[in-house]
Parts: sequence; structure tokens; C-alpha cells
Amino acid sequence: MNDFETHISNYLKRQRPCLISDAMAYAMEGGKRFRPRIIFAITKGMGFDENIAYDAALALEVIQTYSLIHDDLPAMDNDDMRRGKPSLHKAFREDIAILTGDQLLTDAFRVISESKDYDDSVKVNIIRALSTYAGSDGMIYGQLLDVTADDEHIDKEKLEEIQDNKTGGLFKISCLIPMYIRKEKNEAYYTKLGSLIGRIFQNQDDLFDQIKTEQEMGKNLSDAKNNKGTALSVYSLQELKDLIDEEFAQLDRYLEEATFDTSYLKDILKKLKER
Amino acid sequence: MNDFETHISNYLKRQRPCLISDAMAYAMEGGKRFRPRIIFAITKGMGFDENIAYDAALALEVIQTYSLIHDDLPAMDNDDMRRGKPSLHKAFREDIAILTGDQLLTDAFRVISESKDYDDSVKVNIIRALSTYAGSDGMIYGQLLDVTADDEHIDKEKLEEIQDNKTGGLFKISCLIPMYIRKEKNEAYYTKLGSLIGRIFQNQDDLFDQIKTEQEMGKNLSDAKNNKGTALSVYSLQELKDLIDEEFAQLDRYLEEATFDTSYLKDILKKLKER
Repeated sequence: MNDFETHISNYLKRQRPCLISDAMAYAMEGGKRFRPRIIFAITKGMGFDENIAYDAALALEVIQTYSLIHDDLPAMDNDDMRRGKPSLHKAFREDIAILTGDQLLTDAFRVISESKDYDDSVKVNIIRALSTYAGSDGMIYGQLLDVTADDEHIDKEKLEEIQDNKTGGLFKISCLIPMYIRKEKNEAYYTKLGSLIGRIFQNQDDLFDQIKTEQEMGKNLSDAKNNKGTALSVYSLQELKDLIDEEFAQLDRYLEEATFDTSYLKDILKKLKER
Repeated sequence: MNDFETHISNYLKRQRPCLISDAMAYAMEGGKRFRPRIIFAITKGMGFDENIAYDAALALEVIQTYSLIHDDLPAMDNDDMRRGKPSLHKAFREDIAILTGDQLLTDAFRVISESKDYDDSVKVNIIRALSTYAGSDGMIYGQLLDVTADDEHIDKEKLEEIQDNKTGGLFKISCLIPMYIRKEKNEAYYTKLGSLIGRIFQNQDDLFDQIKTEQEMGKNLSDAKNNKGTALSVYSLQELKDLIDEEFAQLDRYLEEATFDTSYLKDILKKLKER
């Protein structure tokens, strides 16, 4: 992973020096790189060196970063803080934040198209996955469901649809990338794997947000308003904990059908469970 | 071109019905399709049927549309009208406008990656051109120069840099697309061709804006404030008219070196001259 941080850093250094490249560096810094970790764990489980996936993981991390920048905008979630520091439109300007998000999204596709590590067929597959699951059949569709969900009742089915698109989208890409590198044809298996991991990740995030808020505030804030669109608008705290355990068990069973060594991925998932 | 409008319409019909697909259809409607026309003219000049370029032209028009949506946002140019009707954030909501722009940009790459008309090598070349010249080496860099130009003195050199990136970016792509379809390797020629066409287009736009404003307002509004960042912040009206004539002559000379039948392109340029 240290080498991957160097890979990100070299990418940022290659940018033309300007306000946007400064903003890109600011926004890329400090991420947990969870999606890249999933990519590398599967890639290693397939017997490759993880650095074969660096360009693809970089593109995905660049897309993840753009999505956070645009999500934080005043017209969207209006978040002033991100990764422990002022969000991009606060640290720079709102127009620079919009443009930086646009540039990151655009550049993700440039990274793949210019990569020296993949042949054209692998590049086209990765680009198709990125543009599908970060777009209208994934992240952006999930965002739409989320921003319009305020107006309607959310039930378990709706929550799952939001999670599967908004969070699941990029995790599906994480699982598909190693498959394309291996030139394996089993989109259904890897897409569902991403979906399962994404759901656990999002449920845990909602759970930790709640526990952290309660600890910090010293009181229970779990009313419907604060948890709008999160798992806790549908489940009680205990129900959510039980659900996550159940989802981990389901994922374990699903991994028994895997055609790669799952030990690296299980290590990552174990850390996820214990975080 | 009617067939191309049908191509756009079929693309929009394929979208999952939701608020974003409604917004996409609203925003795509009414464009002059000038960049696609350039693509088709060169493609025909190379001896192909123009419909071989429809998917690539669709991707470019989709990117052009996203850029207008994000440009019009309150934090950017804050334009309430576009193509004779309320701009997208006025007709829908600001968050929907941001998401719709993001989805269009993402989807442009999906259109190319899923196209049945190009092999993988052509797809990767088109995607590289789109992500380069609509991004950090083109449109977005030009946008940055434009939004930060308020603070500094603009001279002819700076104006040309803004034009060559902001407007020239997508025209370079227009000229490169037929070259990739033909599998010709002469990026320098077609990139410069796009740059020349883009500059004329932008100078004419600035000129027409001014003439139209003067006609509508019944008085001369050409003070530095109204023309900030346009050709008329650097040139007088007569100087700009002379410059455009000179640029048309330069373009004619440049087309003498072309390796395709330039008659279709010259027809388009003639209409541009007389518009």
C-alpha cells in the first residue's frame, strides 16, 4: 500500500501546476483507500503482483474522490468537513470544487486509456465497468435515490436499492477489475461479490456513525431525522448489528465458490469487521 | 443530421426512467450540434458513411451538454437561460443539475466502451482524446483560466490560451475522431485543425454576442466589464472582424495540406462564416 501511495503521489506530480492540481492533491490526500485494498487483495489471490492493478485502482480512487467533492457541495449534502479537514469548496472555492470534481472524473478515463499495463481489450472492459457502475447503473443512480429519498418513505427494499447503487457501485468495480486483468469472464460472480462487500461496508459506516455520534454527544441521537436514508432509519441498533453479522456469514459462504485464493481478501474483511 | 437526431433520441430512450433521464433529455434538446457536424463532414470527406461516427459524435455532444449544465450553475456563470429556455438548475434543481452533468460526463465513456461500431483500439484512442481535450489539457483547463481570469489582465496571448483550451478542446476531438476511425496517425495535423476551427468559432461567438446585444439594447455596451474574457476585451469590433477574416484565410491554406476531401468541411465552414 505504501507503493500505491507513491503511485498516487507520482500521478499528482504529473499534473500541470495550477489551482486545480493543488485542489486535486488536497482532495486525494488522507483517504483510507479501502476500494483499492479490495482490488489488490483479489489481484494477489489470483497470483498477480498487486502493482499490475495500480493504474486501475488509481482511476477508481480518483472517481471516489470526485464523488466526495461533489457530494459535499452546498447544493448536495452541504458538508463543511471531509477527512478531518475543510471540504474542498471550503478550502478552495465552490467553482473550483465543481471543476476539480469534473476534472478528476474525466481524468480517471485518461489514466486507463494511457496505461502501459493493460492491452486495449482490458482497458475497454475497465472503462465500461467504471462508466456503468460509477454512473447510471450505480453510484450516480444511488445518489439520485438518496437526494430524492427525503420525500418518500424508506423501507428495507428501498434502502437496499440505495446501498447497492450508491455504495455498491464502486465495490462492484473493485471486484471486476482483477477479473478483467485475469481475462476471466464471470461478471455475475464478481458483481455480486462487490454488492455483498458494499452492503456490509455501508451498514457498518451507518452503525459507526451512530455509535460515534452517541459517544461524542453523550446522548442518543437516533431519531428518524438524523438517520434519514441510513440503515438506522429502517433498523434498530441491535437489528443492524445482527444484520451485519449475518451479511459477513453470507459473504463467507459466497467466497467458498471463489476461483481465487481468498485469504488476502478475508484479511481485509477481518480488518473491516474489527475496525 | 436528422438521422443523428434520431440517434440521440434513441440514446435518451434507452436511459432508465428517472429524474436524471428527464433532465438529460431536457438538456440535450435544442443544440446546434456544431461539433458533430464537423465530425461528419471530415468523416464523409474520408469516404465513410457519416453514421460510422454517430456514437463518437453522441459521446462528444453528451460531454458538450454536461459542460453547459455545470457552467450555468450559480457558483459558475450563474446563467438562468440556455438554448432559449430555463437552464437545467432552474428547470429542475441545483443538485439534480450537478448529478445530471456528472452522469452525462460518465456516460460519454460508456457510449464509446459499449459501441458496436469501433474495435478496441479505436475505442481507446477516442476515449484518450475525450479525456485529454475535455479535461486537463483542454476544456476544463480553459474553464479554470476563464474563472480565474477576472483577477488578472487579459492580453492577446492569454485570450488565445483560453480559447485554445476552453473552446478548442472539443473541436480538437471533433477533428481527431474521424482520424481514429480511419486509423490514420497524424494527431498533430488534426489537433491543429481543431484549434483553428475552435478559435474562429469562439471569436465569431463573441462578435455575434456583441452585435446582438447592441441590436437588442439599442446602444453600445462594449465596455471592458461586459466583455471580460471575450475577444472584445482585447480587440475592437473592427479588429475582431478583420481577425476572423484572416483566420478563415489561414484555415483555407491549412486545408490545402489535408489528406481528405475537404469540400464537406468547407460547406460547414461557409455556413459558419455566413451565420
